[in-house]
Amino acid sequence: MAEAGEAAAGPSPPPPPLLLGRARALGELGGGTQASQRLLAYSDALLSIIATVMILPVAHTKIHPDQKLNESVQQLLATKIAVYLMTFLIVTVAWAAHVRLFQVIELIDDVLALLNLACMMLITFLPYTFSLMASFPDVPFGIFMFSSCAVIIGIVQAVIVMYGFHHPYLLNHQIQVSEDQAFYKYHILKIILRGPTLSFFAAIFSFFFVPMSYVFLGLITFFPHIHHLTKWFKSKAVGAEEEVPLESFTFYLNEPLSKERVEAFTDGVYAIVATLLILDICEDNVPDAKEVKEKYHGNLISALNEYGPNFLAYFGSFVTVGLLWFVHHSLFLHVTKTTRLMGLLNNLSLAFIGGLPLAYQLTSNFAKKSHNEIEAIQVSCVTIFFASIFQFGIWVAALFYERETLHPYARYGGKEHAFMFAKLALYPCVCLLAFFLTCVLSELSADIFHLMQIIVPFAFLVLRIFVRIALMTIKHVTSLSRRRDNVLEEEEEACLSPPETLS
Amino acid sequence: MAEAGEAAAGPSPPPPPLLLGRARALGELGGGTQASQRLLAYSDALLSIIATVMILPVAHTKIHPDQKLNESVQQLLATKIAVYLMTFLIVTVAWAAHVRLFQVIELIDDVLALLNLACMMLITFLPYTFSLMASFPDVPFGIFMFSSCAVIIGIVQAVIVMYGFHHPYLLNHQIQVSEDQAFYKYHILKIILRGPTLSFFAAIFSFFFVPMSYVFLGLITFFPHIHHLTKWFKSKAVGAEEEVPLESFTFYLNEPLSKERVEAFTDGVYAIVATLLILDICEDNVPDAKEVKEKYHGNLISALNEYGPNFLAYFGSFVTVGLLWFVHHSLFLHVTKTTRLMGLLNNLSLAFIGGLPLAYQLTSNFAKKSHNEIEAIQVSCVTIFFASIFQFGIWVAALFYERETLHPYARYGGKEHAFMFAKLALYPCVCLLAFFLTCVLSELSADIFHLMQIIVPFAFLVLRIFVRIALMTIKHVTSLSRRRDNVLEEEEEACLSPPETLS
Repeated sequence: MAEAGEAAAGPSPPPPPLLLGRARALGELGGGTQASQRLLAYSDALLSIIATVMILPVAHTKIHPDQKLNESVQQLLATKIAVYLMTFLIVTVAWAAHVRLFQVIELIDDVLALLNLACMMLITFLPYTFSLMASFPDVPFGIFMFSSCAVIIGIVQAVIVMYGFHHPYLLNHQIQVSEDQAFYKYHILKIILRGPTLSFFAAIFSFFFVPMSYVFLGLITFFPHIHHLTKWFKSKAVGAEEEVPLESFTFYLNEPLSKERVEAFTDGVYAIVATLLILDICEDNVPDAKEVKEKYHGNLISALNEYGPNFLAYFGSFVTVGLLWFVHHSLFLHVTKTTRLMGLLNNLSLAFIGGLPLAYQLTSNFAKKSHNEIEAIQVSCVTIFFASIFQFGIWVAALFYERETLHPYARYGGKEHAFMFAKLALYPCVCLLAFFLTCVLSELSADIFHLMQIIVPFAFLVLRIFVRIALMTIKHVTSLSRRRDNVLEEEEEACLSPPETLS
Repeated sequence: MAEAGEAAAGPSPPPPPLLLGRARALGELGGGTQASQRLLAYSDALLSIIATVMILPVAHTKIHPDQKLNESVQQLLATKIAVYLMTFLIVTVAWAAHVRLFQVIELIDDVLALLNLACMMLITFLPYTFSLMASFPDVPFGIFMFSSCAVIIGIVQAVIVMYGFHHPYLLNHQIQVSEDQAFYKYHILKIILRGPTLSFFAAIFSFFFVPMSYVFLGLITFFPHIHHLTKWFKSKAVGAEEEVPLESFTFYLNEPLSKERVEAFTDGVYAIVATLLILDICEDNVPDAKEVKEKYHGNLISALNEYGPNFLAYFGSFVTVGLLWFVHHSLFLHVTKTTRLMGLLNNLSLAFIGGLPLAYQLTSNFAKKSHNEIEAIQVSCVTIFFASIFQFGIWVAALFYERETLHPYARYGGKEHAFMFAKLALYPCVCLLAFFLTCVLSELSADIFHLMQIIVPFAFLVLRIFVRIALMTIKHVTSLSRRRDNVLEEEEEACLSPPETLS
């Protein structure tokens, strides 16, 4: 029994040994109070799937193969993609609030679990109200429903906070022992209720002056970042004098998003994207029994030959999703803390990952020699490029504060630094190359593009060998030039030697 | 950095402090070797979504509202539901093999991560080959493709095993220090390759005698359980003499499915089911702008009134999914180890949970006074009943070996036992009641059914109060009758007192 308590409490935020001991002690007190880990994992799964699955209505938009893709893309861009992106961002805002909330409340009981499920139910309903809003931009009812939903979510979350502070043994240990619980309560309520308050004004304004409502709703997504940015500029202008008192009380409430939950949310998005691909294959590419009989004289293999390009597209897309996940996984192995900026870049990267099923639909539907085909490939390149360049951005953002955010091996001069750089730079480079090829070679087909996608993983393995050789050369050169002053030799050795002990 | 290593290694199987130390030590050696936790979480998410998402083609089967549901249900049952159930079971078999594999290999490096992704890609392709097989049962090509896919998966998994044993620092610590590594290697290879070998024969027979292939494929799903059952009967007949040597070397390879991975897989299924519901709402129930203008004179609210029953159906279904997850969560809080039988029952429960989007489609499509409506409610009741009764089965199976599988509080006589029982029995009872009502009251509508679904959570809260009063009464009565022999009084107190310290 002690084992279960330990395993459940394992991946919680900062002070693990302490929390572990607490959770176990409580586990022995009674089953009414529980470690929140699984509830949070479930919430992350729900939220990430909700955010991503809204690409399906976009991807399933019927485009006639003869129609020029250009116009259709514009028509798509205008409404459906906008809905997808906004829903995605709004769900990530809801998710971030949820992360903050359960960094304060670390243990749950049945009542909290049920309240959280109610909150999830309302959040899953948001995409519907949003698509209503997008379909009827002039009708106040859509925006009113959306805003009311957000207000109710805020109220439920406020109830969760009140309940948590009413039963202080559920709280984060640091808050629990602090003298100033009322302050923390006020602070977390302020963070939780910021969005709902803006939504409340949006709901009221929807009856008088709809554009104002949109302004308020736009603020929900960008307010935290604007707030953070102005604070950052202010601190740069005034100097770092203010930061010390701030640090001491916003440690859990403001700055870090728990790394485990960022990973869980990311995994959910990647998993659902990979699955939407196979769902399309299963729904569209199983030939009709009657058609096979009449058109192909019962020969299933020749009927399937027709779908050959689709399978190639599927494998190519899956490989891309899988490898982008792999790069993210490698990166986050070396990340010790996620800052707000890294979280934002991660969400942007995920929004483009969510666009991959659309790219798949385009390249597999137009897999014939046509002008559309080239444009479909270009859309794919752009989508993958942005997904991977934002991943690269996470790395750059981490390097700015590498002492707090990165494992020493990935920091500048660490032995994994160069390889990490190469891994992250691979996809943006490949995409730029592919895009360039579409411009110069008019014969480039979707098939060739998908073959390129399938070949990339081997590039990863070649890359590792290449980086290792390069590092050995550098090491050799530097050791030659520094033979005279070998004071730092030992430190250098520790940093740059390839991991011989391991491979 | 120590923190990250610790958090990542936290929720791994049995010997945590040891593993923790090791993972940290390795983390300090180099980033090339990594704790496998996140890779496994991602695999679980992928596999659970793949298993569940195959209900979509079933749920989206067009049924004409005038058509008698009876016939359509039969037609559905014949092919599509069979495909769904078989895919679900086959994916769970693949998942179980994956769990076993990564109980042996506890740390990963880049090569293993890429091999695992290749394996996942092939597994996600299985549903397609299976639906090909189901659409063309007489053509050998479908079954050949399915079997070949399974064989290739087996080969990739075998390569993973070989790679792992070639780099022993990746293995489970107990195997790593054992003298008999070759034996373990042989044993895990045998488990991994059992399914693929059967598939290989199925692939060969597909060209000569198709029914034989089906027999082989059927064996894949049931062989482990048949094997286990015969062993169990044998041990019952011969006596427990054989068990001691078996126990000593199959500790990691045969018996327990890691509880964390069972939870992750389960969460994935519940999350995707909840999401498929909102996806249906978003795709079907956003009114067309033109229609609103012409039919409702631009009045959006009256257009939405049309969809009222659908929203009720959505909230009802979401509440059901959420609460069934909640019950599962409560149950697994008290489970310390999952036996093979519990895993099987859990998978069966999940298969029915996956059927809920279909039930939702039926009840929301036939939300008018008709004979179909009653039948749709009955289908929903049956689906929920089986999902919840199999959950109840997990609990019963756990009680058989309560010393190994359950936390003391949930065992017979523990203070959470009665409440756990009540929680698990609630849904089966409600379903039976609803089914009974459909038979006697011909006026029962889908709306009333969904309202019933929404009311159930409050029943949970009432239940807790009710169970507590009942326990207090029992305690009072027993303490009165046992006043003379108060030797065991103290123990009783510890077991039956309501958790006053906590609430």
